[in-house]
Amino acid sequence: MNFCSMMKSNEIRKDYALKRRVIIASNRGKRPEDFKKQARVKAVRNGKCSFCPGSEYLTPPEISRVVEEGEWIIRCFPNKYPATHNSRARKKTGFLNSVPALGRHEVIVETPKHDGSVSELPVGHIIKLLDVYQERISALNSLKRVGYTLVFKNVGATAGASLAHTHSQVIALPDAPDLVREEAEAYSGKMGCVFCRVMKKELKSERRVFENEHAGAFAPYASRFPFEVWIMPKRHVKSIGDLSLDEKTSFADALKHVLARMNRGLGFPPYNYYLHVSPKKADLHFHLELCPKTTKLAGFELGSGMYINTISPEDAARFFRGGDI
Amino acid sequence: MNFCSMMKSNEIRKDYALKRRVIIASNRGKRPEDFKKQARVKAVRNGKCSFCPGSEYLTPPEISRVVEEGEWIIRCFPNKYPATHNSRARKKTGFLNSVPALGRHEVIVETPKHDGSVSELPVGHIIKLLDVYQERISALNSLKRVGYTLVFKNVGATAGASLAHTHSQVIALPDAPDLVREEAEAYSGKMGCVFCRVMKKELKSERRVFENEHAGAFAPYASRFPFEVWIMPKRHVKSIGDLSLDEKTSFADALKHVLARMNRGLGFPPYNYYLHVSPKKADLHFHLELCPKTTKLAGFELGSGMYINTISPEDAARFFRGGDI
Repeated sequence: MNFCSMMKSNEIRKDYALKRRVIIASNRGKRPEDFKKQARVKAVRNGKCSFCPGSEYLTPPEISRVVEEGEWIIRCFPNKYPATHNSRARKKTGFLNSVPALGRHEVIVETPKHDGSVSELPVGHIIKLLDVYQERISALNSLKRVGYTLVFKNVGATAGASLAHTHSQVIALPDAPDLVREEAEAYSGKMGCVFCRVMKKELKSERRVFENEHAGAFAPYASRFPFEVWIMPKRHVKSIGDLSLDEKTSFADALKHVLARMNRGLGFPPYNYYLHVSPKKADLHFHLELCPKTTKLAGFELGSGMYINTISPEDAARFFRGGDI
Repeated sequence: MNFCSMMKSNEIRKDYALKRRVIIASNRGKRPEDFKKQARVKAVRNGKCSFCPGSEYLTPPEISRVVEEGEWIIRCFPNKYPATHNSRARKKTGFLNSVPALGRHEVIVETPKHDGSVSELPVGHIIKLLDVYQERISALNSLKRVGYTLVFKNVGATAGASLAHTHSQVIALPDAPDLVREEAEAYSGKMGCVFCRVMKKELKSERRVFENEHAGAFAPYASRFPFEVWIMPKRHVKSIGDLSLDEKTSFADALKHVLARMNRGLGFPPYNYYLHVSPKKADLHFHLELCPKTTKLAGFELGSGMYINTISPEDAARFFRGGDI
């Protein structure tokens, strides 16, 4: 296969903490422009948007809101089609194994602006959003049958968003997902927190994306997706609630910076992000993982649990730092 | 949250063999018609199709072909942009962990017909395709640095296919993916093969999709996706090569039946399938997993490793059996 000889050599990389493996196959020589296919994810108004001001009556009863100058700027309410709820399903064990999907499923509308984007919100607004995330995590974790609360965000139809008005979701689950648990278990008593070492090392590496006083962002060594970025507080904390105001400001600033650079460089692509806060009784270093949706998961990924990524994290980081790739 | 009380109760189900968990959230009341959004996955001809007869010179040098009446009906050649190849990358261990992505990456064009579909091939043709799969698995597994060979298929752009002319792919890897290994390890010496029990049980359950003399198809208990179907030989075999001609015929017949029903009922949706053959030195029950691509993986799936499926496998199986859901 001598047609390979001109190509960069592909590698199979392992995640810092998880067993997850990724083939970094940057031999296709793609550039960010190749990913800039779609125009800005459009917040088209198909009839009445139930997340816009004036449509509050269309959502289930509100849980909380953040008000500024008499108007709400962030709103939280139950999801109309919850994944987890007051399930009446019965537990099954043995050959077929099932538990009731007990929990809660909520929506957080992050701005009254129908075509708004988190990258365009002031840092102060993003700090308030982080506070709402933490408030919901704490409130839901205190429920009797909730073991973990996952906060995530889908932007654009190809990233799974069914409504265009920008929003986050919160799903409370009976226990921590295996993926989060596996990450938390990588905390080794002897070597300390894996992610504390990751932060120190990656912010000095060619995978560094952004750094301010209390937070850092980098393209993870085994990035599953082109332009994947993780954002972490520098200090080891379990969740948003453990951050000081200065640290939270740094984190919000890093999130805004990374999203803005992604939106500018890739033309407002669809994306997902989610928070990994520590499960109860564990000590996971809180962080946010951002996955732009520029590629499709296909048969290889589904069948192997591995990923093929055609943009190396080193190239992705160079793009985020403002350089070429 | 009394708006939940009218809904079906959601469950969190665990896979037969894997730790993988799925929230079955069939409370959205969707019907197959809701998934029939797109017209038939179109094999549009953008310029010259390099997989069509007459364009053979556009592909890397051919590895093998199946000929009928003087013309090829199946062709195999290396992928131009291989995920695994004769990598010159160096192994890294320690904090950052990487191995060269050694292996091969090949393409199998399943029919000379540009807008063909596997569901429309005669059973005899599908048997020959299965033989090509097995021939490539055996040939690649015999290479020194190959530990596992994964055969998979992407149909439609949203399922990750970059070329429209129907084809499968073969990726040889240095070792078995963790997902396949985990499945193989569920083989318990005492209880015997998990999948032998699964077959017996599921073909009598409401998740039964199709059955003939030597093969069966069912919607798996913890289906990740709406209309996911697994096809298995009834006898415990490790790969296609262990099947008798009768058994292979049954398997090809089951695959054709299931794909045809999916295409008819859902309007030729995009989809993926992949083979799980046994890793070397293991004893996994060979099977094929079919995943129609009717939904998007989103932040919840990426952040948790869990899935939300809005069509229960019981409803999906009823649809495949020809009933309503």
